[in-house]
Amino acid sequence: MSKFLNNYWYVAANSEELKDRPIARIILGNPIVLFRGKSGKIGALDDRCAHRLTPLSLGRIDGDQLECGYHGWTYDCAGKCVRLPGLETPQKITVKSFPLVEKWGWVFIWMGDPDKADNNTLPDFHVMGEDKWVGDGGMLRVEAHCDLIRDNLLDLTHAKYTHKQTLATEDVDRVPVTAERVGDLVRVKRVMKNIQPSPFFARAVGYTQNIIHRQTTEFTPGCNIVIRLRGNSSPGTSENLKNGFRVLNAMTPETGTSTHYFWWLGRDYNQENTSLTQWMKDANARTFLEDKTVLEGQQRNITSQPTQQPVPSPADKGLTLAAKLTEELLQGEAE
Amino acid sequence: MSKFLNNYWYVAANSEELKDRPIARIILGNPIVLFRGKSGKIGALDDRCAHRLTPLSLGRIDGDQLECGYHGWTYDCAGKCVRLPGLETPQKITVKSFPLVEKWGWVFIWMGDPDKADNNTLPDFHVMGEDKWVGDGGMLRVEAHCDLIRDNLLDLTHAKYTHKQTLATEDVDRVPVTAERVGDLVRVKRVMKNIQPSPFFARAVGYTQNIIHRQTTEFTPGCNIVIRLRGNSSPGTSENLKNGFRVLNAMTPETGTSTHYFWWLGRDYNQENTSLTQWMKDANARTFLEDKTVLEGQQRNITSQPTQQPVPSPADKGLTLAAKLTEELLQGEAE
Amino acid sequence: MSKFLNNYWYVAANSEELKDRPIARIILGNPIVLFRGKSGKIGALDDRCAHRLTPLSLGRIDGDQLECGYHGWTYDCAGKCVRLPGLETPQKITVKSFPLVEKWGWVFIWMGDPDKADNNTLPDFHVMGEDKWVGDGGMLRVEAHCDLIRDNLLDLTHAKYTHKQTLATEDVDRVPVTAERVGDLVRVKRVMKNIQPSPFFARAVGYTQNIIHRQTTEFTPGCNIVIRLRGNSSPGTSENLKNGFRVLNAMTPETGTSTHYFWWLGRDYNQENTSLTQWMKDANARTFLEDKTVLEGQQRNITSQPTQQPVPSPADKGLTLAAKLTEELLQGEAE
Repeated sequence: MSKFLNNYWYVAANSEELKDRPIARIILGNPIVLFRGKSGKIGALDDRCAHRLTPLSLGRIDGDQLECGYHGWTYDCAGKCVRLPGLETPQKITVKSFPLVEKWGWVFIWMGDPDKADNNTLPDFHVMGEDKWVGDGGMLRVEAHCDLIRDNLLDLTHAKYTHKQTLATEDVDRVPVTAERVGDLVRVKRVMKNIQPSPFFARAVGYTQNIIHRQTTEFTPGCNIVIRLRGNSSPGTSENLKNGFRVLNAMTPETGTSTHYFWWLGRDYNQENTSLTQWMKDANARTFLEDKTVLEGQQRNITSQPTQQPVPSPADKGLTLAAKLTEELLQGEAE
Repeated sequence: MSKFLNNYWYVAANSEELKDRPIARIILGNPIVLFRGKSGKIGALDDRCAHRLTPLSLGRIDGDQLECGYHGWTYDCAGKCVRLPGLETPQKITVKSFPLVEKWGWVFIWMGDPDKADNNTLPDFHVMGEDKWVGDGGMLRVEAHCDLIRDNLLDLTHAKYTHKQTLATEDVDRVPVTAERVGDLVRVKRVMKNIQPSPFFARAVGYTQNIIHRQTTEFTPGCNIVIRLRGNSSPGTSENLKNGFRVLNAMTPETGTSTHYFWWLGRDYNQENTSLTQWMKDANARTFLEDKTVLEGQQRNITSQPTQQPVPSPADKGLTLAAKLTEELLQGEAE
Repeated sequence: MSKFLNNYWYVAANSEELKDRPIARIILGNPIVLFRGKSGKIGALDDRCAHRLTPLSLGRIDGDQLECGYHGWTYDCAGKCVRLPGLETPQKITVKSFPLVEKWGWVFIWMGDPDKADNNTLPDFHVMGEDKWVGDGGMLRVEAHCDLIRDNLLDLTHAKYTHKQTLATEDVDRVPVTAERVGDLVRVKRVMKNIQPSPFFARAVGYTQNIIHRQTTEFTPGCNIVIRLRGNSSPGTSENLKNGFRVLNAMTPETGTSTHYFWWLGRDYNQENTSLTQWMKDANARTFLEDKTVLEGQQRNITSQPTQQPVPSPADKGLTLAAKLTEELLQGEAE
């Protein structure tokens, strides 16, 4: 059985990465070249020229086409060879191309069966496209299987231990979660009342007293997590909370032990405060580096002792559901 | 058959390495976390939390316990999980722990059958605990099997060629050794009369003329070597020599091709001269770096051509006995 | 079948590399030590002392002999052990030695059957020894199989795409090549009339207008390429052209995916202009770094997808012949 779900959209790049040069990226184990033509059109091809297998990412963009940097064979965004120096009429030569959709500042790629690629099945990251939500993001390469990042995000009690400097909330592991599966979605919820805000939220909102804080985490396959956070100075109920955050997490497998982790962090208040946006982005990037250390250590141990089974905790409800869902879908793809 | 002897005490760390943070070390192929609790108690555990297999060495010390840096599972020095956030009463969860003995400034670990661990079978490094002997030591990671370091120390003729700047004694390879096995101990002896002292001994003692110099090297398994050196300005007999040195060498396998090499160098004269102690330590550390270069080249050649057999020399008597003894003991453990 | 042709002379080193220290070099997968004795005599031995398999390249040159840096075993240029400390009369101990021929500033080694080593079958690099030709060279380690460098040099159309800053000639891929095999030699020819000279040739000769340019590339096994270039300010015929260049290329396999690439670039005019010699050497070294990038990317792709077949182009005539010749010779050696 494959290590990854194939028939899903994965984030291949931030839109702003595709400028005047092609970029090389390994996605689901395949070396891919991504490029944007002069007209804005984008392409994703096998990163191997048909001629002598040289990486096309070493070449240059020529109009809307990609010219190999070895002998000048030139391909369009669909992978068709449109120029072959020394031949008037190129034969029918192609390199494999991959469907792309550019939306919300991200470029999504479809690595599976191209007949199944449907532009309407993108992960739901629509808040990045709404004026109401303001934020910024980044990409972090993590030397761990994407499922380990999924599990990290589905059990936020780790904030107390892994993120002592940033996200730690003393009460996070005292409040149990609820978890449910709805079709191909797994949802985990936790409402914490009258808690001390974490350093991050205290500064991001300006809290000076205890708060009520609601976390909703939703997993959808391939490997995407949307976290919705909302809080108020307490006391209060969990309805009509004011300050909202969204953390979007798109995990794109590189190999069986590494992931390109794309993320975006937004808020729905103080939208005009650009220095707050910058601070939130920087703080989140530091937080994810703390996760990276833990995840890569975990992967090393799994790699060296692949048969040792984890012991579940009460907070693992959500990730147990997500692992089961992913397993089912992998079996479905294998059949 | 295993690459290492298991049922022996190995040095896991210098006592002073265990301070306020846990340390990670691979010992006999196993990732181990070592830590010292606030009371001074020490523990050695599998470096994998039972929960999600994250390295415990990324966590923090809490009293006499070790808290995982991912979700806060907490273990005592015996590996028992004593706190599991979200559960009032932890289930019976443990990670494997390893017997430890702290003595003479070193922490010894027992990786084999715990029922066979006997605190009275430590290697004999007692001189580190005697006032009469003053010295200092260190640890060097060498990318070579521990047996190659054993062989290096059992044939000191290499000093003339490998340590031209420090330990070279022109006469060392002109004087034959005697070697004997006494039970599980191998002893090699050489007495050199009327020789020019090496640069190291000339400076360490203040010799200005030729000396008599006696070397006794003793190997005991797992992989330990004690070297006793004693000399006098010559002429003289080999009895009642004045200036004594001890080089203690404890080779702890990391993997089949790497070793944590702990050492200590002491003397029994001029004990109050701390700058001499420092100089001797630094000179010895430089000398061992010369060995490291040779040993790692040797290991690379053995790894790339594992079937090529060495050709013995007359000075190999001791190491031939030690190799045979080790082989016998490995077979005994395999049965 | 072997990855390399064995019964051919390969360049092991530049003569000037062999000074007062032995050097280590992996050749056709074998660790070799090369050294020059005090009398000028040179030797190539297995880089493993017979005693404890330590690399002899860590030792020192003693007269015309090589002394191991571990226990002082000493070998002559034929690999015979001539000194074994502690033994009056060394036994018959040898390490494997390899035939060498030093000529034209290069040291050639024979890795195959020593009975077939014939000093009269060196590759024809005689121009390095003629006063008429002045030049200089270097060595570049490339992480690619030697055949990829061979293919690079047998299709010079790549200059237009890979060497935009140096060797690009707009017309190179518009003029077809002729290719022929003559016994164990493959020859590729191209004559370009009335073309704009490349930046390199414009500066090296001082061309200010269009030129006629003739390229002849000859491959001979093991893996050697001689390129003859000659040009004139045009118009003109392809006979009696004035400014001649020679690029000698000797590819010595290190492993199945890496090569020591020795090269020399000479000219037959302006011989006294030493600053031109230096500039040509430096320019060529920069050009070959551009090739290195492409070749190493190509090798990575071949290693990760070894079954994907290249699609030939019209300019591949020469390299197709050379690949076929090499394949035949490999089969011959296998039988």
